[in-house]
Amino acid sequence: MLFNSTQRPSYEALETPCLVVNKPILVRNLTSMRQNIESLGVNLRPHFKTLRSLEAAPHILPNKSAPITVSTLKEAEVLADEGYRNIIYAVGISVTKLARVHRLMSKGIRISVLLDSLTQAESLNEFCSRHQCSISALVEIDCDGHRAGVRPDDPLLLHIAQQLHTGDAHFQGVLTHAGEAYHCQNSHSLRRAASAEVKAALDAAQHLRSINIPCDIVSVGSTPTAHSYRDLAGITEVRAGVYGVFDLVMHRMGLCDIDDIAIGVVTTVIGHNVERGWLIIDAGWMALSSDRGIDSQTSECGFGLITDGAGTLFKDLRVSIVNQEHGIIETEGRDGIDFEAFPIGSRLHVLPNHACATTAMHTHYHVFDAQKATYEVWTRILGW
Amino acid sequence: MLFNSTQRPSYEALETPCLVVNKPILVRNLTSMRQNIESLGVNLRPHFKTLRSLEAAPHILPNKSAPITVSTLKEAEVLADEGYRNIIYAVGISVTKLARVHRLMSKGIRISVLLDSLTQAESLNEFCSRHQCSISALVEIDCDGHRAGVRPDDPLLLHIAQQLHTGDAHFQGVLTHAGEAYHCQNSHSLRRAASAEVKAALDAAQHLRSINIPCDIVSVGSTPTAHSYRDLAGITEVRAGVYGVFDLVMHRMGLCDIDDIAIGVVTTVIGHNVERGWLIIDAGWMALSSDRGIDSQTSECGFGLITDGAGTLFKDLRVSIVNQEHGIIETEGRDGIDFEAFPIGSRLHVLPNHACATTAMHTHYHVFDAQKATYEVWTRILGW
Repeated sequence: MLFNSTQRPSYEALETPCLVVNKPILVRNLTSMRQNIESLGVNLRPHFKTLRSLEAAPHILPNKSAPITVSTLKEAEVLADEGYRNIIYAVGISVTKLARVHRLMSKGIRISVLLDSLTQAESLNEFCSRHQCSISALVEIDCDGHRAGVRPDDPLLLHIAQQLHTGDAHFQGVLTHAGEAYHCQNSHSLRRAASAEVKAALDAAQHLRSINIPCDIVSVGSTPTAHSYRDLAGITEVRAGVYGVFDLVMHRMGLCDIDDIAIGVVTTVIGHNVERGWLIIDAGWMALSSDRGIDSQTSECGFGLITDGAGTLFKDLRVSIVNQEHGIIETEGRDGIDFEAFPIGSRLHVLPNHACATTAMHTHYHVFDAQKATYEVWTRILGW
Repeated sequence: MLFNSTQRPSYEALETPCLVVNKPILVRNLTSMRQNIESLGVNLRPHFKTLRSLEAAPHILPNKSAPITVSTLKEAEVLADEGYRNIIYAVGISVTKLARVHRLMSKGIRISVLLDSLTQAESLNEFCSRHQCSISALVEIDCDGHRAGVRPDDPLLLHIAQQLHTGDAHFQGVLTHAGEAYHCQNSHSLRRAASAEVKAALDAAQHLRSINIPCDIVSVGSTPTAHSYRDLAGITEVRAGVYGVFDLVMHRMGLCDIDDIAIGVVTTVIGHNVERGWLIIDAGWMALSSDRGIDSQTSECGFGLITDGAGTLFKDLRVSIVNQEHGIIETEGRDGIDFEAFPIGSRLHVLPNHACATTAMHTHYHVFDAQKATYEVWTRILGW
């Protein structure tokens, strides 16, 4: 939806709470990451999970055959219906989801699934045999003990890949995600996490090739490490998601400025609790999420930091408490809240701790481009 | 949507993650609260915000003119379109939302708004004057310092009510919510919170009547206090929300048994991290929410406790970590997880910490009645 200037509802007419996107900042972030990764000679396979909006896809991808990552089959199905056709579903597969994967393949979509166990590989082979198809699978590599995956030097990796390679499924390569990189405190540890991620993927691929199993995809990625690679020789693609919009977690890691955060939740001051020194706003966890970001950062950002509509940060304010449809803003300043500066009815923006979680609370995004004087409403793809 | 037996998809065919409702338990909980409150001689005005589903409304309310509470105008609009017509919108009103309230009134809906400041009262009078209408307003009373509202003995209460009473708006009464009752640790403190809530509302009403301002509605409520009232003389209605489905917060407060929790998130085991002792499931914060419940309970329930499909609790398991589409289940047992008992592909249920937050992550609920052998899909009303 793109409104022309006569139809365009003004920013002031937006009902709160709602999520706004600053489109020029989004596009700048997306372009910058693409240039960085492509300058290292590697494909970017953006993660769709942060925005999950078809209207965002042309900005995230250069064309419909460019690679993309999804976190649900629902995203894959909507993208496929629009002509996007090179997809990795990057959550460990379960048998009950294979029929939908198969349907996408039947439509000519290149879609790969992810697994890290012999059980899954056996089930996949069996499904492919029964349905006379060959679903492509990546084996997840554990590069940092974060969550899932097989260690690159674990003989299990070779067994799983061998089973896929000799079965009816198609073994396509390896994928790793440096989830622990979100806990890095400085650029040195980030670079170390990025190197470890790359090394794990390359080691895994090399072990497989040494027993003559081809490894077409060698995929790495997380937004923190994607900002920290120096050498990607041997890697075929990088995945990252939140870099398009950024958030307070990324800011506190030093990966973006406050001005690079492309989204905010617009909220109205609906009350003053003078006794407690609270501004009460109409954005609770329904609009912001309950995500507090990385634990170590909890105390400083609360449930989000506050700017005015122009993006200027109120340095000592934060959302300290959230209920369903109420948020409470407190100050860290010694003089308490200046209630006259924030009258009832005034409007504030809340910057998200974790953009993926905040976007997930909204069915639509209000997308403004002040430079081009455009306003669009983007729809989020919901569900699984 | 109600499927007959031939169309009925089986429980086993549900794709995960998804939210299931045990309908007989829901109906039992709803009935029990209604009987308790009505036996105290008072109306029940249930809060719609937990389920937000039109299909649930006939179970929540005895008829379409029965009173209901909503947390968004979107809920009010959908209910009104279906014929429900006695609504309190229980979040502090802001001017930009009044046009929608006015539209509902024009359709013959009785809808009341909530406020706690002279600014809001002035804006409401001005709106009513400009649009030649008389919107009903309740003044929010602060009974426990939880969030918003005016103390019952604060002269500001009289000023606000007077302003509404003499202006174009309609002053309708007082409303309070014992939000601090969620921190009560035992039945004694719950009863004290319930008494304090009732007293605050009665005191406020009495002050107003003493200056000849009629106070038709004297509304109290929270699920914890709604279980703890003994005497409601002078109160006109009780509001409560989560009692229909319950959750782990309510269970840990002693307000329900585990068997009274009417919802769960169905999830599939998608991985074993043997080294760390983790079951990896396909329900992350997108399916469960990031809500950890009341802070003091954090360590024990994590992001949810685990049952099998029949509702039997695995006492030492909990979801300890959530990412977007991944959850991690850990055990508190000394022997670690029995991986053979939870093979990859097996199915578990996660009981919610906070039901309102977990339902909010789903567009649909899968509603089973094992006694009547029925399966329904209920749609959640989304947005604001």
